[in-house]
Amino acid sequence: MRVEVVAVGTELLLGQIADTNSQWLGEQLAASGLSSHFHQHVGDNHDRIVLAFRTALARSDALIVCGGLGPTQDDITRQAIAEIMNVPLERDQNIADGIRRMFESRGRTMPENNLLQADVPRGAKIIEQRRGTAPGLICPLGNKVIYAVPGVPYELTEMFERAILPDLLDRVRADGSTSVIRSRVLRTWGASESGLAEALNSRFEELVDSSRVTIAFLASGIEGIKVRITARGDDDANAEELLAEEEVQVREIIERALGDIIFGVDDETMEDAIAKRLCSKGLTLAVAESVTGGLVASRLVNVPGASEWFRGGVVSYASDVKFEVLGVAKGPVVSGSAAEEMADGVRTLLRSDVAISITGVAGPESQDGHPAGTVFVGIALGENVEHVQLNLPGDRPRVRAYSAISALDALRRILDRN
Amino acid sequence: MRVEVVAVGTELLLGQIADTNSQWLGEQLAASGLSSHFHQHVGDNHDRIVLAFRTALARSDALIVCGGLGPTQDDITRQAIAEIMNVPLERDQNIADGIRRMFESRGRTMPENNLLQADVPRGAKIIEQRRGTAPGLICPLGNKVIYAVPGVPYELTEMFERAILPDLLDRVRADGSTSVIRSRVLRTWGASESGLAEALNSRFEELVDSSRVTIAFLASGIEGIKVRITARGDDDANAEELLAEEEVQVREIIERALGDIIFGVDDETMEDAIAKRLCSKGLTLAVAESVTGGLVASRLVNVPGASEWFRGGVVSYASDVKFEVLGVAKGPVVSGSAAEEMADGVRTLLRSDVAISITGVAGPESQDGHPAGTVFVGIALGENVEHVQLNLPGDRPRVRAYSAISALDALRRILDRN
Repeated sequence: MRVEVVAVGTELLLGQIADTNSQWLGEQLAASGLSSHFHQHVGDNHDRIVLAFRTALARSDALIVCGGLGPTQDDITRQAIAEIMNVPLERDQNIADGIRRMFESRGRTMPENNLLQADVPRGAKIIEQRRGTAPGLICPLGNKVIYAVPGVPYELTEMFERAILPDLLDRVRADGSTSVIRSRVLRTWGASESGLAEALNSRFEELVDSSRVTIAFLASGIEGIKVRITARGDDDANAEELLAEEEVQVREIIERALGDIIFGVDDETMEDAIAKRLCSKGLTLAVAESVTGGLVASRLVNVPGASEWFRGGVVSYASDVKFEVLGVAKGPVVSGSAAEEMADGVRTLLRSDVAISITGVAGPESQDGHPAGTVFVGIALGENVEHVQLNLPGDRPRVRAYSAISALDALRRILDRN
Repeated sequence: MRVEVVAVGTELLLGQIADTNSQWLGEQLAASGLSSHFHQHVGDNHDRIVLAFRTALARSDALIVCGGLGPTQDDITRQAIAEIMNVPLERDQNIADGIRRMFESRGRTMPENNLLQADVPRGAKIIEQRRGTAPGLICPLGNKVIYAVPGVPYELTEMFERAILPDLLDRVRADGSTSVIRSRVLRTWGASESGLAEALNSRFEELVDSSRVTIAFLASGIEGIKVRITARGDDDANAEELLAEEEVQVREIIERALGDIIFGVDDETMEDAIAKRLCSKGLTLAVAESVTGGLVASRLVNVPGASEWFRGGVVSYASDVKFEVLGVAKGPVVSGSAAEEMADGVRTLLRSDVAISITGVAGPESQDGHPAGTVFVGIALGENVEHVQLNLPGDRPRVRAYSAISALDALRRILDRN
């Protein structure tokens, strides 16, 4: 069963709104083991909507059409479906009465064009609307089907779960196939996409012929590289088992080749990883930032409950703020010793157990004899005050963003060591 | 010139990442007067990618393909294009050397599979890569064209602006269309989209029949509402003239109805607006942040040359950091007087001329008797220390982001007053 999502609306093509519906539907379909090979966006134009539908019907078994069911002149999904089905639109008196009553119950007069929402292609089944005015449609075309739902996410999700997904699963069962797809993402920092690919290459090759498990890479820019494992099982338990087995293998391969680069699973961020470690050790943290200008602190406070372990920070952008407020010795401020003094200074000033600091050159010019991208991270923990040096690529915002996550990763590794 | 965007990647179909590229490209194409009638998503599967490309070529003149150009086994856009063009892939030695050098300069060994990124379909033109490793491609097919760019937004946007948009506009001109489209964006903070639409409604109506000038609204979330003016002129000078005339009118209407809400033009950010005012007055700035946790400081250092006027900041997340480091009087820390003391305290500590502070409740729980979204901004300038109170909607990240830009906007208005 191949399902194609077609999102209708000129605002999508103009980039005026984000298409969150296709993303949500894709996620739901995958979680139910249904394949979705293509998505389309098309504007509010009759001929082009018809063309998009015909294209989708040629390569997929089921279409989920989002949007274009409202009461205004640019809502023309119903007409396009009627043309594809080669049937007339007929007014459904029950729906019309329901829309009328809805306006009356709110004490408002109903603009006449609202009744267009009661027009149904002959032969289509209605998906009752429980949250708005326009009903959804289930439109059979031989052994294929078009589902039409409103583009409002709040209405779409309810109709999908109540009516469309059960109908799709009935069709799959009628076809004699049942499988469940599950996926898990391992998040890494510190390796290149190609390095990861090389490490996992032989496993990748072994899985080429597997219809059960696949591995893929997602470069997520400043958040590192994600390795996605996807498993197709006979049922939930079987899919989870395949996933767990593959995760063990992939973790082993990565750790052997590249070390401790996996910092999180699925939605877990680097700051979540830090929070978990600080909480379990009962330690508090402070940060001193120069080149990152507050970026590290602003990431840390995004973790729910950060006030348990986060004391705060100093953004020592001007050099004399480093000297006067953090007690850094006068001299070059882009150096390992300056980073160590910053960390130690902010730990004392804010009375934390642990502190990290970042000083470096965002560029484009070099500073203190260091080229752009040179960054020193200082870490103060117990008796130990140390630093690591980084050489980061990219322009100013990129150097900053890489510095922030690299500093947190350095802290993660040191917390794990202690 | 009909342009179709094809985003490649199984992660898009599975809903694991949002397709921000199609939205961004749609916005850019529209702003340049180019039509985009369809978008597609397709997974990392050779036959289906080829089918998506053929479908797009049948109904559009130009394809922008995003993604699938990386070094891993699932990056197969190059092969699909070669099949469509019916040509072999050939290794480009210049690109290969460049990739090799890039790894060497970072002191890392290059995994061999990186060289796949140097494979180019015969007859394709290369778009030099300036931010990553995979180059882009311009692939002619008779009078149609396929552009291929990496899916990393940071690389894609740069290649689009530098190479693809100019090439598209050359093709439009070669087609004999001679009008020039220019647009300008006025950036506002503090008004609702419907409030702006109401203020501009009569001007909007006057322009309905104009084929020369249009106005549109772009809600940009935490960056406010943008008003985009687009003008179609006979040549550059004419388009610029139409734009300038319309800008005067629109500014007058907005300022009369809603006051001083325009803070920037085109790419000008709120922090740019602050930087301009501080530089012209020769003032330095420090910030004290609680609820925003460093977000304001990290925005400010993004302005080139920030070291001229930005001293730094204190992230006083824990209450006793406010008391001990900033000298705030003990007591509730979410209040106007606490905000004023934070601003005054950080101004003294970091020896700046001006200071702003933010304290408030990000939620979901209330604090000090204030509901989530209550935020106090303190501003210290000369003899004057004052505060403003904000009541902001949304969840934690949203309250933080709104707080940061609102605090900067409050400073902007006070700097203009003095």
